[in-house]
Amino acid sequence: MSNDYEELRNLLQRYARAADARNVAALRSLFSPDAIIDGARGRMAVAQWLDAMATPSPFQASMHFLGEPLIEFDAAGDAADLDTYAVVYQIADRSGGQQDLTLGIRYLDRVARSASGWRITERVAKTIWTRQEP
Amino acid sequence: MSNDYEELRNLLQRYARAADARNVAALRSLFSPDAIIDGARGRMAVAQWLDAMATPSPFQASMHFLGEPLIEFDAAGDAADLDTYAVVYQIADRSGGQQDLTLGIRYLDRVARSASGWRITERVAKTIWTRQEP
Amino acid sequence: MSNDYEELRNLLQRYARAADARNVAALRSLFSPDAIIDGARGRMAVAQWLDAMATPSPFQASMHFLGEPLIEFDAAGDAADLDTYAVVYQIADRSGGQQDLTLGIRYLDRVARSASGWRITERVAKTIWTRQEP
Repeated sequence: MSNDYEELRNLLQRYARAADARNVAALRSLFSPDAIIDGARGRMAVAQWLDAMATPSPFQASMHFLGEPLIEFDAAGDAADLDTYAVVYQIADRSGGQQDLTLGIRYLDRVARSASGWRITERVAKTIWTRQEP
Repeated sequence: MSNDYEELRNLLQRYARAADARNVAALRSLFSPDAIIDGARGRMAVAQWLDAMATPSPFQASMHFLGEPLIEFDAAGDAADLDTYAVVYQIADRSGGQQDLTLGIRYLDRVARSASGWRITERVAKTIWTRQEP
Repeated sequence: MSNDYEELRNLLQRYARAADARNVAALRSLFSPDAIIDGARGRMAVAQWLDAMATPSPFQASMHFLGEPLIEFDAAGDAADLDTYAVVYQIADRSGGQQDLTLGIRYLDRVARSASGWRITERVAKTIWTRQEP
């Protein structure tokens, strides 16, 4: 890895791939063990959030399509705030009459450098808008 | 900031956050004082464009979701052209019967290095497509 | 160009602009002469794929809106795998009753450094979802 900016972009893209694959082990590796996640399910420890991600999704597939993060490093350079827009496409099994759902989300991540690379220590996921597709 | 590429990505992301917050002071800081903006409202000085941005939006919220810029620096490295695709989600107050609007936009920005960082000196915003959501 | 990461992002963004302009010469310059493309039309040599791109699109316009690539370099640094999410907006001539189409695509690209810069040597384009707009 060439630098911190590239590592942080990589971290977010690995999040997207792991979330879409419902790969809990891969998701776990992106967060510090004591991370806090505050999103659609409320505020909880990462272990609890990972348990929820281990259950089957009601949707057939998803695509976490992330924009470029707005990155602000702390003065010491070992922590940063990331502000990332995302559009999440939740794809229904249309044969069952279910509808697609699209969400506009803003991820506000606190990240810290660890011995094994950057990790998310706190995530606030704000849903800005949702659209139920016809 | 590590380098010009990161500063330019940062500039665009700050534009998105400022536009969505209708934060005119933050928007002003991204443009050179004599910048020209050529967009949906026609071609005008940035001061006039900022006046328009200071009026309330007809929409409840927006999300300026920007792609990666295609960046071409001048030989001297103190100016560049940015070509950025964006999808702009304009979210309606649905209780009022208004519909969401989605726009596909191509921002063609001329940027220049100033004493206080990179600034947009000219922006042409081309609307490629629009969709009125059902 | 400052570094390989920026060159690879540039390569993908040039792909998007060339695809939307149906500019076959520009598209050709992004691939190695013996590249293989495996997408909606099946698996084929790049020359055959370019022939298909030279025919008029059934749509009036397109926007290849690409996310940030997940980049993994080989140990030697002269080849890499790129995993890129994209949303492709195919815009219809609505006066003709045609409908817009939106596709969620995952581009899995193998790229290699050549004397004239990075080139795509193999592309697998997987359509994750499609939406026929109302």
